[in-house]
Amino acid sequence: MKISERIFRANYAIRDNAVLAEVEKLKKSGRTIFELNIGDPGGMEGAYGFAVPKHIVAAYVAALKSGKNEGYATSQGDIFLRKTIQKDALSRGIRDVNVENIVTGQGVSEIIDFLFASLLDKGKNVVLPRPDYPLYTALAGYYEGDVRYYDLDPENNWEPRPEQIAGLIDENTIAVILINPNNPTGTAYDAPLLKRIISAVSKAGGNCVPIISDEIYRELRFSGKHVPLASLSTTLPIITFDGLSKNHYAPGYRLGCAIFSNFCKKDCACLMDAVTKLGGFRLSANKPAQHAYRAALEDRAKNAAIYARHLKQLKARTKYAYSRLKKIPGISVDEPKGAFYILPKASGPWKNDKEFQLALLREAGVLVVPGSGFAMDPKGLYFRVVTLPPVPAQKKAYDALEEFMKKHLGK
Amino acid sequence: MKISERIFRANYAIRDNAVLAEVEKLKKSGRTIFELNIGDPGGMEGAYGFAVPKHIVAAYVAALKSGKNEGYATSQGDIFLRKTIQKDALSRGIRDVNVENIVTGQGVSEIIDFLFASLLDKGKNVVLPRPDYPLYTALAGYYEGDVRYYDLDPENNWEPRPEQIAGLIDENTIAVILINPNNPTGTAYDAPLLKRIISAVSKAGGNCVPIISDEIYRELRFSGKHVPLASLSTTLPIITFDGLSKNHYAPGYRLGCAIFSNFCKKDCACLMDAVTKLGGFRLSANKPAQHAYRAALEDRAKNAAIYARHLKQLKARTKYAYSRLKKIPGISVDEPKGAFYILPKASGPWKNDKEFQLALLREAGVLVVPGSGFAMDPKGLYFRVVTLPPVPAQKKAYDALEEFMKKHLGK
Repeated sequence: MKISERIFRANYAIRDNAVLAEVEKLKKSGRTIFELNIGDPGGMEGAYGFAVPKHIVAAYVAALKSGKNEGYATSQGDIFLRKTIQKDALSRGIRDVNVENIVTGQGVSEIIDFLFASLLDKGKNVVLPRPDYPLYTALAGYYEGDVRYYDLDPENNWEPRPEQIAGLIDENTIAVILINPNNPTGTAYDAPLLKRIISAVSKAGGNCVPIISDEIYRELRFSGKHVPLASLSTTLPIITFDGLSKNHYAPGYRLGCAIFSNFCKKDCACLMDAVTKLGGFRLSANKPAQHAYRAALEDRAKNAAIYARHLKQLKARTKYAYSRLKKIPGISVDEPKGAFYILPKASGPWKNDKEFQLALLREAGVLVVPGSGFAMDPKGLYFRVVTLPPVPAQKKAYDALEEFMKKHLGK
Repeated sequence: MKISERIFRANYAIRDNAVLAEVEKLKKSGRTIFELNIGDPGGMEGAYGFAVPKHIVAAYVAALKSGKNEGYATSQGDIFLRKTIQKDALSRGIRDVNVENIVTGQGVSEIIDFLFASLLDKGKNVVLPRPDYPLYTALAGYYEGDVRYYDLDPENNWEPRPEQIAGLIDENTIAVILINPNNPTGTAYDAPLLKRIISAVSKAGGNCVPIISDEIYRELRFSGKHVPLASLSTTLPIITFDGLSKNHYAPGYRLGCAIFSNFCKKDCACLMDAVTKLGGFRLSANKPAQHAYRAALEDRAKNAAIYARHLKQLKARTKYAYSRLKKIPGISVDEPKGAFYILPKASGPWKNDKEFQLALLREAGVLVVPGSGFAMDPKGLYFRVVTLPPVPAQKKAYDALEEFMKKHLGK
């Protein structure tokens, strides 16, 4: 039996099976592992305390009990949900929003797959941030496209340089990916920088190369207010991602969407046809869960208190992680502005970040994702931590990390 | 903007957008359309009356309310569910069932995609029934594999000939697909035929070419008892499909599974690695829905009455459709044994089955899927009807079909 080459073209480090097998082995031997690797607010059976807001659960339950949502949905996503997404997007300042140009999927991940499958081929390229979110790099490889990275600059609070993005665009570029707030750096971009990016991409791409604006963490900012990229242009094609997983703490419900703004009619129709065709292969997304997503968007304002409570928790926990990391010898770190990640840099005797990751796992029981999993130079010794766990759990992890670093640096 | 060639390599007729647009147009003009096209037991907001059995809904609701299922599941499917699937499969006589060799997905459709992506390439081929279930043909084209059809013989109650299947297998064959009970013919295969197929495929493929046994309609037989293919061999690799969509009337919940039996250890590990990697791209399936699937399997016996009631309904409706079709001039038809489809053949003045489909839609308001959507010769004028609607609704459709046929045949 021969496995297709395409499978080996893609590498996805967050769920690195070799490391996960090592974790299982250590757990079986009785070791406690501090897992700072998966950005899952509902992880550990809800032990992080970020419960899905009740209005969302209630709508999901009501949809199940109604008996009216047991069949397939439409491949593009049911119209009631797309109307809600439209209304929400308009209310947030996104100007070009048409229900025909919205597609929902089983998480944004699935939609990224649909988009890359529709647009990438040998000879085509996609412009990605480095550090990246690894699914983008994995799927680009899977579809035989080239990846061109623009750098998020750790010397400049992980912000990109618009002129570098522009310089990477050519006639074979299918899209520029922008993740804001950012995974894995935890930074967030404000309107002035976003406007400069729009201007640079518009000019370089002749308003033909879209920006895919991944805003799945849009509500998770610790200060300032998120500005949707598509609220800042009426001419540059922009695809905005949104979903239940992060902003509404419900990744297990698997629902997300993409909103296509400012596309010329023909391009948009072709792309929506392609994406909907791929959506048709799996017939539809979960139907009752679409009601959960509808309620999440419609009734968010009415339930602002629970979102505020969650965000306050998240901010405190992230602040704690930052304050600990800042004081650990051999670790340098930038203060995060949103989401639930930090990407610190270690210095020490390790040849590369995978060696660092494994040593940290085996010696200190702390599981992180190495920077190379996000396309960083392995020698840079970057690693991503997740800031979701409660402070007492994080304390144990950072105590262990601190001891580990002191030991290796001889302090 | 250029859409990738791969999108155009795949055609999927059941959700043919051009025909669906015509349907929308007719509906807007005030016409009533009798939709016999989609095999969706939960369709029309539950109007068919095949409610999802209450124990399944209750388990789904409990999973949502528990607050413990809000995070990602594992990419392969959570272990509690795979254990339940294992127990169920063993209880049905499938002998080689290991939790490591089970994968769950958002419907079987997604798993077909994972399998074909893992195994197909240029130069490889897959052996499919004709009439096919069109997703198989669509995905084979998408992954640049060749399709080799074996015929389901309308002269022999739509049964395949094992020697024809064997004759199509060569060293580039990745799998043989068997759909039992069958969509779109509504037939079902019993142990003697299944044993002959196993023997023929074993010999032709040297026990290296697996049969993918799509048993998504396994409980929907009107007489006789379903025999799982994998209960009949301990040597031929078999992948058994099962899921919530048809056997449990819950397609909108999007959960299915594949059980890998009789694979050599190395092949199975490679294939599971590939499939799980693809599963990792979308992170996981819906997590609370996995509890619905668990309950469906665990508590089916305790809730036998509701399944019996649904099946009795389905049998009566299918019998009605068959009895009507049998009497319509210009229509020939075989008696179905299971599932909820019939594939009658028309004769008349139409050049091909798409012309027939459109004439039937425009003149009589009856929507069917043309046989060519299932890889049949368009000139054969086959068409698929779904037998899910209640008898009064079907009566209107068949009255309209009868009138349409009489008009065109001058009777």
